[in-house]
Amino acid sequence: MATKHILIVPGDGIGQEVTAIGKKVLDKIAAKFGHTFTYDEALVGHAAIEATGNPLPDESLEKMRKSDAVLFGAVGHPKYDNDPSAKVRPEQGLLKMRKELGLYANLRPIKLFDELLDASSIKPEILKGADILFFRELTGDIYFGEKGRKNNGDTAFDVAEYSRFEVERIARKAFEAARTRRKKLCSVDKANVIETSRLWREVVQKIAPEYPDVEVEHQFVDATAMLLIKDPRRFDVVVTANLFGDILTDEASQIAGSMGMLASASVGDGTGVYEPIHGSAHDITGKGIANPLASILSAALLLDISFGMTAESAAVINAVDQVLKAGFRTGDIANAQTPKDKILGTEAIGEEVLKCL
Amino acid sequence: MATKHILIVPGDGIGQEVTAIGKKVLDKIAAKFGHTFTYDEALVGHAAIEATGNPLPDESLEKMRKSDAVLFGAVGHPKYDNDPSAKVRPEQGLLKMRKELGLYANLRPIKLFDELLDASSIKPEILKGADILFFRELTGDIYFGEKGRKNNGDTAFDVAEYSRFEVERIARKAFEAARTRRKKLCSVDKANVIETSRLWREVVQKIAPEYPDVEVEHQFVDATAMLLIKDPRRFDVVVTANLFGDILTDEASQIAGSMGMLASASVGDGTGVYEPIHGSAHDITGKGIANPLASILSAALLLDISFGMTAESAAVINAVDQVLKAGFRTGDIANAQTPKDKILGTEAIGEEVLKCL
Ligand SMILES: CC(C)[C@H](C(=O)O)[C@@H](O)C(=O)O
Ligand SMILES: CC(C)[C@H](C(=O)O)[C@@H](O)C(=O)O
Repeated sequence: MATKHILIVPGDGIGQEVTAIGKKVLDKIAAKFGHTFTYDEALVGHAAIEATGNPLPDESLEKMRKSDAVLFGAVGHPKYDNDPSAKVRPEQGLLKMRKELGLYANLRPIKLFDELLDASSIKPEILKGADILFFRELTGDIYFGEKGRKNNGDTAFDVAEYSRFEVERIARKAFEAARTRRKKLCSVDKANVIETSRLWREVVQKIAPEYPDVEVEHQFVDATAMLLIKDPRRFDVVVTANLFGDILTDEASQIAGSMGMLASASVGDGTGVYEPIHGSAHDITGKGIANPLASILSAALLLDISFGMTAESAAVINAVDQVLKAGFRTGDIANAQTPKDKILGTEAIGEEVLKCL
Repeated sequence: MATKHILIVPGDGIGQEVTAIGKKVLDKIAAKFGHTFTYDEALVGHAAIEATGNPLPDESLEKMRKSDAVLFGAVGHPKYDNDPSAKVRPEQGLLKMRKELGLYANLRPIKLFDELLDASSIKPEILKGADILFFRELTGDIYFGEKGRKNNGDTAFDVAEYSRFEVERIARKAFEAARTRRKKLCSVDKANVIETSRLWREVVQKIAPEYPDVEVEHQFVDATAMLLIKDPRRFDVVVTANLFGDILTDEASQIAGSMGMLASASVGDGTGVYEPIHGSAHDITGKGIANPLASILSAALLLDISFGMTAESAAVINAVDQVLKAGFRTGDIANAQTPKDKILGTEAIGEEVLKCL
C-alpha cells in the first residue's frame, strides 16, 4: 500500500483523450490494490504555447520534478509542421522535458498480442512470437546538437554529437535488460559512414566483455530497417541512437499491429515519463475513436518501472489482453473480419478494460 | 546503332559475381540490337585498398569520367566494420566517387514482380500493385559534412548540411518524375526537430507551385518508416535526404520481396553509375549463390537512363520477368513452395535470363 503522486500531461491532439483513459486505469488499480494515487495536470506542447507562449512552462517542469511519475500524451500540431520557419514549436517542449529530466533511456517494448496477429501488414507466420525491447538514447544525437543557418540562410546545418559517457550509460541499461531476457543484444549504428556511430560501436565493443552471457551483434541502421520486417524474431534487445531509434521504433510498430498499441518509458536521472509512441494525430482528434490502449499500456509500464508494482502492471496488461480476446477493437486494429458492434470508441474500449480489472 | 564505353566496377564481395552477369546481359543486348559496347574495369573499395592503399584510386576515377556509364557492384568488408578506428575504409571510395562524379540523385525504383508476391514478409494483399520511385539525395547531408572527435577523443561529432541549391535540384528531379507517373510526391524529412529538414521542407514548398499537376505531401521520416509497411501503395514518388533515403530504401526492399531484386541509378552532373542496393554480402561471397537480378536490372536502368535505349531496357526487364514466371529463383527469393531444382545459383539464373533475351 503506497502513496504516489502522478502528473498527467495530456499535451496535444488525441493526447487529451487517451491520457484520460490511462488515468482511469491507474485509479482503478489504486482502488483494487489499496494504493493512494494523487494527481495533478500540466501543460506542454501546442497547448502550453497557446496558454503561455512557452512549449514547456517552468511550472510544468517543476510539477514533473516533484511527481513520482508522469503519464504523458503526445505533442505536435499541423500548424507548425507546415511552417518550417516557426520559431516556437510544440516539440521543443517535449525535447526540453527529456533533457531537463535527464530521460536518456527510452524503452520501447514491441510485442504483439496474439489476438492482433492479423492486424499487421506483415504475415502472421513471420510475426508470431516476435518480442523486441528497444533502448533508444533520448537526450543526445542530432536532436540536441547545435543547429542553424549560414550563408544568408541558404545553408542549414545540424550537429550530431555523442560522448563516451552518454553511449555507455544507455548501452549498460540495454545489456542489463538483455540479461533478463533472451540474452541477445543488437547495437545499431552507421559506423561505416558516421563518426558518432564509430564512437558508439567502440564503446559497445569495449563494455561487451563485462556481459559475457549476452551475445552482441552490430548492425547498420539500413540493414536493420530491412531485417526488422524480414525477420523480426531475430531481435531481442536493440540499442541505438536517438534518431535511428525514432525511425526504427515507428517502423517496428507494424510488428505490433498498430502504433496505437505501443507504450514507451523514458527513464534516467529523475522522474520517469510514460507515453504512447504514437503522435498527436490531429486528423482524428475529438472524434472519440483514438486507441487508448497505448496510454493504458504506458500506465502499466509506469506502475512497473517507476513504482516497482509488478503485479499491478501485469493486471493491466492482462486486462488489455482479455479485452482483445473478447474481440473488442478500436478502428486502427480492426480488420475486415471484425464485427461492426465490436469496434469501439476511445471511452467504450476503456470501459471494457476497466471491467476486466 | 550506338557505340558506348561501359566501365565495370565490381568492388567487393559478391560485387564481382553479380556484375559479371550484368555485363553478359549488356553484351547480349549489344549483339541483339546491333550496338557496340566496349568495356573496361576499375577497382574501388576494399579491392582497391588491397591493391593500391586507396579506396578510390585516381586511375579508377579517371576511367569513370571517361566512360559513358558505370556498372557498379558493391563495397565493404567486415574487417573494417569491426574496427571502428580504421582510418582507411572501403566506403570512402564509394562516397568519394559519388561526390567527385556529382551523382546527387539516387533513383531507387521499388516494384514487385508479380511472381514474387509470396517472397515478401508483407501480406500479398498489402503489396499487390505497390510501385514506388525513391529519389535519395546522394552527395550531401551527414555523409559529407565535417566529422571528428573532441575532448581527447571522448566526444564524436558529425555535421549534417544542406544548401537550398542541393535540395532544389533533387526535388525538381523528383517532381519531374512524378509528372510521368501517378503525379504524387511525398517529401520526407524530420522538420519538427532538424534544421536541415526545415530548409528541405521550405524549398519543396517553394517550388511546388511550379508543378501544379503534382500532389505534394510532407511526411516525417518516422511516420514514413511506418507507412511504407502499413500501406505501401499510398506512395508514388518519394524524395528525401541522403541518410533517410539510405534507411527507407533498404526497408522498402522488403516490398520488392528481397534486396536481391533492387537496382539503383545514381545520376547528376556526369557519368551515371548503376548498382544494386544490396551490399557486398561477404557471408555468401564465392559460394555462387548471390542473386544477380539486381545487377541485371541495374544494367536495364543504365540502358534506359544513360543511353536512352528504352526498348533494350524493356527487353532486359521482360527477360527477368520471364525467368521468374518460369519459376526459377535464387535462394533469397525462393519460398517453401519452390521446387528444389528451380533454385539456381548466380551463373545458372544468369543463363536463363540470357536465354530469354
Ligand atoms: C515529436 C517528435 C519530436 C518525437 C521525436 O522525434 O522524438 C516523436 O517522434 C517521438 O518519437 O517521441
Ligand atoms: C555502403 C554505404 C556507405 C552505402 C550508403 O550508406 O550510402 C550503402 O548503404 C548504400 O545505400 O549505397
